[in-house]
Amino acid sequence: MALAAEAATIGRAVPVWRSKLLKSLAQNKRLANSRYVQLATVRPDNRPANRTVVFRGFLSDDDDSLTFVTDSRSRKVGEVAANPAAEVAWYFPETREQYRLSGNLTIVDAASTDGALQAARKRVWHNMSDPGRQQFAWPHPGLPRHLEDPKAWDCPAPAPTDPVLDTFCLVVLHVDEVEQLKLKSNERFLYRRQQATAEGAAAAPLAWVEEPINP
Amino acid sequence: MALAAEAATIGRAVPVWRSKLLKSLAQNKRLANSRYVQLATVRPDNRPANRTVVFRGFLSDDDDSLTFVTDSRSRKVGEVAANPAAEVAWYFPETREQYRLSGNLTIVDAASTDGALQAARKRVWHNMSDPGRQQFAWPHPGLPRHLEDPKAWDCPAPAPTDPVLDTFCLVVLHVDEVEQLKLKSNERFLYRRQQATAEGAAAAPLAWVEEPINP
Repeated sequence: MALAAEAATIGRAVPVWRSKLLKSLAQNKRLANSRYVQLATVRPDNRPANRTVVFRGFLSDDDDSLTFVTDSRSRKVGEVAANPAAEVAWYFPETREQYRLSGNLTIVDAASTDGALQAARKRVWHNMSDPGRQQFAWPHPGLPRHLEDPKAWDCPAPAPTDPVLDTFCLVVLHVDEVEQLKLKSNERFLYRRQQATAEGAAAAPLAWVEEPINP
Repeated sequence: MALAAEAATIGRAVPVWRSKLLKSLAQNKRLANSRYVQLATVRPDNRPANRTVVFRGFLSDDDDSLTFVTDSRSRKVGEVAANPAAEVAWYFPETREQYRLSGNLTIVDAASTDGALQAARKRVWHNMSDPGRQQFAWPHPGLPRHLEDPKAWDCPAPAPTDPVLDTFCLVVLHVDEVEQLKLKSNERFLYRRQQATAEGAAAAPLAWVEEPINP
């Protein structure tokens, strides 16, 4: 969905940080890498892992989770099963802004029985480029490379309407906290969910609170 | 020091990954943000932290550690004291390459008694821009902002030759492992230090081994 259309069709009160992020994406859209972000997780040995991934859009108009994709054979799938905590660092060169988004990850694989998440996995597969889809038919990522088998990399790319390959996983970041740093104006904002009260804990989703903090 | 000059004046056998990184920096130098990298660490609650920092050069011609700067009052200083493990993700848009560099961090503050590290801290302070140096005289980063005191942000910038402010820390990443991913050619290389043998453990620094792995 185009960003302008996405902003226009959202009916509910969208969190301020989501609106800001959509605006930053629009302002930086001439840069091919404005959708590249760095995703940090924690390995089982308590060391951090950090890699560049491509933002594939918000989960839906009503859900502010960020989506990415990964290969079921990649090391991060096992790491996330042991510790789902993640933080994304997202730098926009054109507007000189950084967003940090933290929360927990869900990996949606072929075996996932959640209907909405499975539908999102199929939609993102459909929207991938052909070379993007082809990678999921490649040999096991990260293993020693056997250069004597060039044919392994020339497999035909699955079409958008082909069945989703089992190696294709959707990665969903459920965002709990967002920090925006604007280098041009030296402003910094923290967005956190309002604290639940004893009475309101089971009520509607909590509103986000904005706090200006020192840069 | 200019990158070309840096490459030319190094006498010893430079690790392949350092030479590649210097070449990538030169090929991407038209982009102001080619020296911006994302540094991931682990917080005491076992959640990852991830933020954009500026690469300030290698520690020396003979030491392949990467350097950055931070404020002694920033949250990451306490986090690193509890867990020094870190991974840098570094994406170069022009050449479409990613480096991941992992290892342990050392924070060099005003109290550090290591002569070489203290000299490096002073050198990096000297090489900072005036606005870069000024930030270390600002109010405590990350605390709630008191907008009623705009004067706090207009403090004069310390000159290159002024004494180093106590809040100024050098951050040193001692690199143990490097991975390079080239998106244009779908190549991926892993660089690790050679395993120490029982006899050679106390000998000269171990050589780096390159291994091609599946992208």
